[in-house]
Amino acid sequence: MKAYFGRRYMFSASHRLHADSLSAQENRAAYGKCNNPHGHGHNYIVEVVVGGPVDPETGMVVNLSALDQAMQTKVVGRFDHTNLNLDPLFVNHVPTTENLCSAVFDLVNETELGCELEYVRVEETENNFFQCNRAKGS
Amino acid sequence: MKAYFGRRYMFSASHRLHADSLSAQENRAAYGKCNNPHGHGHNYIVEVVVGGPVDPETGMVVNLSALDQAMQTKVVGRFDHTNLNLDPLFVNHVPTTENLCSAVFDLVNETELGCELEYVRVEETENNFFQCNRAKGS
Amino acid sequence: MKAYFGRRYMFSASHRLHADSLSAQENRAAYGKCNNPHGHGHNYIVEVVVGGPVDPETGMVVNLSALDQAMQTKVVGRFDHTNLNLDPLFVNHVPTTENLCSAVFDLVNETELGCELEYVRVEETENNFFQCNRAKGS
Amino acid sequence: MKAYFGRRYMFSASHRLHADSLSAQENRAAYGKCNNPHGHGHNYIVEVVVGGPVDPETGMVVNLSALDQAMQTKVVGRFDHTNLNLDPLFVNHVPTTENLCSAVFDLVNETELGCELEYVRVEETENNFFQCNRAKGS
Amino acid sequence: MKAYFGRRYMFSASHRLHADSLSAQENRAAYGKCNNPHGHGHNYIVEVVVGGPVDPETGMVVNLSALDQAMQTKVVGRFDHTNLNLDPLFVNHVPTTENLCSAVFDLVNETELGCELEYVRVEETENNFFQCNRAKGS
Amino acid sequence: MKAYFGRRYMFSASHRLHADSLSAQENRAAYGKCNNPHGHGHNYIVEVVVGGPVDPETGMVVNLSALDQAMQTKVVGRFDHTNLNLDPLFVNHVPTTENLCSAVFDLVNETELGCELEYVRVEETENNFFQCNRAKGS
Repeated sequence: MKAYFGRRYMFSASHRLHADSLSAQENRAAYGKCNNPHGHGHNYIVEVVVGGPVDPETGMVVNLSALDQAMQTKVVGRFDHTNLNLDPLFVNHVPTTENLCSAVFDLVNETELGCELEYVRVEETENNFFQCNRAKGS
Repeated sequence: MKAYFGRRYMFSASHRLHADSLSAQENRAAYGKCNNPHGHGHNYIVEVVVGGPVDPETGMVVNLSALDQAMQTKVVGRFDHTNLNLDPLFVNHVPTTENLCSAVFDLVNETELGCELEYVRVEETENNFFQCNRAKGS
Repeated sequence: MKAYFGRRYMFSASHRLHADSLSAQENRAAYGKCNNPHGHGHNYIVEVVVGGPVDPETGMVVNLSALDQAMQTKVVGRFDHTNLNLDPLFVNHVPTTENLCSAVFDLVNETELGCELEYVRVEETENNFFQCNRAKGS
Repeated sequence: MKAYFGRRYMFSASHRLHADSLSAQENRAAYGKCNNPHGHGHNYIVEVVVGGPVDPETGMVVNLSALDQAMQTKVVGRFDHTNLNLDPLFVNHVPTTENLCSAVFDLVNETELGCELEYVRVEETENNFFQCNRAKGS
Repeated sequence: MKAYFGRRYMFSASHRLHADSLSAQENRAAYGKCNNPHGHGHNYIVEVVVGGPVDPETGMVVNLSALDQAMQTKVVGRFDHTNLNLDPLFVNHVPTTENLCSAVFDLVNETELGCELEYVRVEETENNFFQCNRAKGS
Repeated sequence: MKAYFGRRYMFSASHRLHADSLSAQENRAAYGKCNNPHGHGHNYIVEVVVGGPVDPETGMVVNLSALDQAMQTKVVGRFDHTNLNLDPLFVNHVPTTENLCSAVFDLVNETELGCELEYVRVEETENNFFQCNRAKGS
């Protein structure tokens, strides 16, 4: 058996989807109303899932407060109540939720948690989500 | 018995809470991180509840497509994927969700639906909502 | 203070909305695709809310197993996995969710629960609900 | 129009339902498996709803951080990760969720929030809730 | 890293589970109350998950409006507000949600989306789901 | 294609996290407020997912009532409305939700269901879950 632990976090932010390398028409075709000027926003729900053996003494996969602290410092504290387009990560990348999800994966992954980061899922609305999985063999 | 019908709609928008009449310190005290410059955003869920007698022939309180059309034209189409601070309604009012809820109430209420608008509830996040009820006797 | 207790039940059923007294065109205008021949179906969630004083000895408003038994016998057992159009209640009434909600209210209300039935709410989908409230003064 | 603001909080606690004044058989009849010895537990979701005029300058009904602080100090900090039967409030009252809801109402109500406490709702599970409303005229 | 995008759609339909090749008793044993004559119904939630590389220019895995159009044309428009037993797909197959899920997988999979269809999940109720995954290596 | 079926069950229980082999300070560091004396509790949601071929005659992956009976007998009936620390399974294991999830996996897995148990997921709160997957190749 392999054991996993997942935990959900939330932040609210605004963004506008617009690629400088695309024409106005191409931007509209790619992003639809997400290309509207002046931006819009979402409540982003971030689900972080880690995996590893259950410690036989504590019965835990990961220390919860260590994960919470990493998420607060690196992710929620950084993106909550901000305009994503102004974050240094998105100077050269469109802040699509795919790119946001990938950025969160990297930010969590560089933390030493004592177990593997399996995936990060970002729900943009009740009906949309994006997920980045750890590469097999990494 | 009195019968009610409720229906939920969704739109995504950004806003920044800042009252020009307040000092920077007062704005921070009133709005916390919602006062951050450059704005942030939410998925707003709008619940509209109407009440009235059940039509004995159709067994309905309100014509659903008439309500949908009014909501699409007046509310969702107006606010979805926009920056609320730029809407004419919020030139002189801070776009708090209280004020947004009240504005949605008025926009729906001026529509002829053949039944009474009982309340409008706006959920800003999973854990926060605002509601405006029809005044008793109105 | 007044105390209330609410409990949710679920059943799945099919229905078709069609009023014999209306023309084909009027049926389509009133019910849209709910008028499609051969019917369709829903998972109906029924929320029953009762109110009354808290018994000082037991600390309860209503005996939960009495409510469950009444709901199972009179509502869930009757409508679950059926075609609502074939129920005697809907021989002369279109099985709109308004009429279903009103029928559930009456079925629960004729039960002796030792407290007042405040309202019955039926959720037809995640985004639609109907509610029947006890008449004031009744 | 009247405006309301609702906010949800969560805590986890254990309880056992048992009235000393009742016989073993009466306790079983009243509480069912909630009377099991050694207790069990729930994730309690507490929804607090306040009402009042919208401040024309701030566009708010209540200062959110004041409400959060009151809830943290008086309710969540008190009950989270505890055994409710050991709380002084429940020495002489069975810790039913009705009584818990009523106790939370009183704890919030004694706080000066600058608006009226309309109701407190406690969800014991996804399918059960209890609510205490402010008495009319109070 | 591998990226995924998931999106949820909804439709309401009725069905009856009955295999002509089974006896009345065997049908009852296999399907329980889902074998009731005259059918019943559900709100089906369909989650479609596609995977592939994130386009470096647009920051997207799939064009959302292309997916929406395929789902509307091939799935939602076909099954919404219908009786599944009458669909040509279920003339020779019992319309269990397993078979429905498999049929939706095939209908989406024959569409050119520019990325791989990873899985289709159909939620029949809040507490039941079925899922069909792309075969490994296909 | 591979087909899966998932079903959710619920029970309420109390637990206290405390490892006898750890010091008071180490227990506090590992478990935080979950180490509070006298315990606390949760509504545990258990999602069981099985996989296998769809029976061509019945169109089903697993007999639903067989799964329900196994879950009621072995899991829900055992843990619902109990104190987990008193269960024989947790005499020598801390009743963390990781260990609970693993125990549920084993209890379900020893049942003959005619298909493979893929994983068991236990949600401790709306924002936390634990999952045990079948070992690959087993």
